[in-house]
Amino acid sequence: MALIVQKYGGTSVGTPERIKAVAERVARWRDQGHQLVIVVSAMSGETNRLIGLAQAITSDPDPRELDQMVCTGEQVTIALLAMALMARGIPARSYTGAQVAIRTDRSYTKARIESIDDAAIRADLAEGRVVVVAGFQGIDVDGNTTTLGRGGSDTTGVALAAALHADECQIYTDVDGVYTTDPRVVPQARRLNRITFEEMLEMASLGSKVLQIRSVEFAGKYNVPLRVLSSFQDGGEGTLISVDAEDAMEQPIISGIAFNRDEAKLTVRGVPDIPGVAYRILGPVGAANVEVDMIVQNVSADNTTDFTFTVHRNEYRKALAILEQVCNEVGAREVSSDDKIAKVSLVGVGMRSHAGVASKMFETLARENINIQMISTSEIKISVVVQEKYMELAVRALHTAFGLDAPAE
Amino acid sequence: MALIVQKYGGTSVGTPERIKAVAERVARWRDQGHQLVIVVSAMSGETNRLIGLAQAITSDPDPRELDQMVCTGEQVTIALLAMALMARGIPARSYTGAQVAIRTDRSYTKARIESIDDAAIRADLAEGRVVVVAGFQGIDVDGNTTTLGRGGSDTTGVALAAALHADECQIYTDVDGVYTTDPRVVPQARRLNRITFEEMLEMASLGSKVLQIRSVEFAGKYNVPLRVLSSFQDGGEGTLISVDAEDAMEQPIISGIAFNRDEAKLTVRGVPDIPGVAYRILGPVGAANVEVDMIVQNVSADNTTDFTFTVHRNEYRKALAILEQVCNEVGAREVSSDDKIAKVSLVGVGMRSHAGVASKMFETLARENINIQMISTSEIKISVVVQEKYMELAVRALHTAFGLDAPAE
Repeated sequence: MALIVQKYGGTSVGTPERIKAVAERVARWRDQGHQLVIVVSAMSGETNRLIGLAQAITSDPDPRELDQMVCTGEQVTIALLAMALMARGIPARSYTGAQVAIRTDRSYTKARIESIDDAAIRADLAEGRVVVVAGFQGIDVDGNTTTLGRGGSDTTGVALAAALHADECQIYTDVDGVYTTDPRVVPQARRLNRITFEEMLEMASLGSKVLQIRSVEFAGKYNVPLRVLSSFQDGGEGTLISVDAEDAMEQPIISGIAFNRDEAKLTVRGVPDIPGVAYRILGPVGAANVEVDMIVQNVSADNTTDFTFTVHRNEYRKALAILEQVCNEVGAREVSSDDKIAKVSLVGVGMRSHAGVASKMFETLARENINIQMISTSEIKISVVVQEKYMELAVRALHTAFGLDAPAE
Repeated sequence: MALIVQKYGGTSVGTPERIKAVAERVARWRDQGHQLVIVVSAMSGETNRLIGLAQAITSDPDPRELDQMVCTGEQVTIALLAMALMARGIPARSYTGAQVAIRTDRSYTKARIESIDDAAIRADLAEGRVVVVAGFQGIDVDGNTTTLGRGGSDTTGVALAAALHADECQIYTDVDGVYTTDPRVVPQARRLNRITFEEMLEMASLGSKVLQIRSVEFAGKYNVPLRVLSSFQDGGEGTLISVDAEDAMEQPIISGIAFNRDEAKLTVRGVPDIPGVAYRILGPVGAANVEVDMIVQNVSADNTTDFTFTVHRNEYRKALAILEQVCNEVGAREVSSDDKIAKVSLVGVGMRSHAGVASKMFETLARENINIQMISTSEIKISVVVQEKYMELAVRALHTAFGLDAPAE
């Protein structure tokens, strides 16, 4: 008998019929003798409907009141799921975040969980009940309702699993696991049976939007085994996200290939190569709340250097305007920029113990005549920036070169 | 400066525009220097939408879970109204029933308020905030969400007014006050400036559905002045419902005329006139959960009597089947029945000190050739049962005879 926390997202509970299907799935797990805590999101579309109501009132709704309102979405789903379980003869009880209580800080719309009182849930589990908990929400020390921000239901699931020392936290979603890369780009992409927290973080932050990145960090921090599963297919094992296996020999070198085309590249050319110049360039960018992703500075020639970084494409114009000003101030030669770029990244803990990954990556891209504009590396990741039009080709070539293609059936 | 509790029903907050109109009205009261606590219902249609979702899950939803879900309707409205107030620069804060806390018993879907913690509300008022409270809902001693049943938002308003010792509880609705009778039947019906709690109870229970009857009882018990006002018309004074004025001379003899056609009449004829026979007839009816309204037993002749009572028309068939059985058991002669009846009632505290009201009523009906089938009286009410087809005629004739018609303009 295991204690399992399952989380179902908005699509999985989008209609009464789907909620009944979730109840049926929960019933099957319970029949196997497991204790179950179920975390649910609002029915799909509901959160947006509520935000639309708020926006019909005011363009700048008060954050406390927004949370007070938006948290009702999950509250409806927990009650419906508990009803559906009881209609199947399964004792069940629903809890709002406040009722649990899931204590958070006071940061409305993006609160962080501080503690979870597991007494009531444990008592219900001991009495044989399935416990249904509203995701995405909590309560601050004064009794105000808070929400964890979009996707926060995953975080609720992981935090509950950590508090209850659950054997596994299962995240049900509309895909059946984590893939080596996006199957829409590479049809031969394979579902991974396992992936480490670190790899998942790199994959997620690079654009494989299966899981909320915060929930993966949380799961890693508290060592909660996390499994991604399909809520529409039965019997799959999904992908287990857990700590690094001890025997690195069994790890594949590369677990997956992430990519995105959400960034733009900015270069300040002919920057005087003196201490503090990087700060004088990036300081104003950061002050304008523009987040910078990759940063590359080449070695200098003639006492000047080129300074290149990427930002989200939405903030490209803003960053460019700042840079033109900065360029004069620091006495740089010129600013050049390009928003037709893409970032492609190899991710894998096996990289740590294997040399030659980078050179094989560059060789593969060279063979396809894809020019590399920027390179950035970390312990378990190598990212390159290429022209946007080559993105799919680069991903497919790398997927094959690193042996990730699924065997032909 | 007064402390005023205002309650707005579902129609008054049915759209974002109407919620903004409520905020505007609240702003005007606040500009006059009053402290305000606003109780709101769910947006019209929302509660039914939620119940529809539950019924799509199961025909017999668990009451705790139903309350957990249905209470979200008001929670959305309080947040939207608080946002609308803040958008006008008025400091405001919303509270769910749990946040207040409005403590109730454990009777899900029809809970009764046991106590109200007014500390947080008082603190907000002292700091100049408008407090917005979700109607219809509370929390039991274990932290479960409860609801007060349909129309319970009126009760929330009155209970808060009592707990806060408010100067007045204003109920905003889609009519501009309590009328001498239904204006759809008598176009000359007048709005009453004042009416007593007792009269209002008789009017409400007899079918003038302006206010939840429970809220009027509650207001009477705690002596909370209650005012019914239109939320769509400005400047009206509405109708003040309060305790009996001391100087009965100033009371009109009759305040209003109530009527309904929701009842059916059943008579057991030739009942042996022996002790206990009334119980042997009404016991089985009550045991079947059929509520009995008027009961009339005439003096006996030949040691038998006729026993007549009325029930809701929906339960007419059920009651009739029970009576046919009872008729044999008690040795009565026969059962007769009629579901084409109407009840017309004069209501007024002035009756207490004025003789001749009944005879004037009977005379008026006789002049119109309306036969009276049953008569029942109380301290402040005289009810008669007539053939249904005469109902409107009876109400109009009585309205004129008792001087209730509005003066011609």
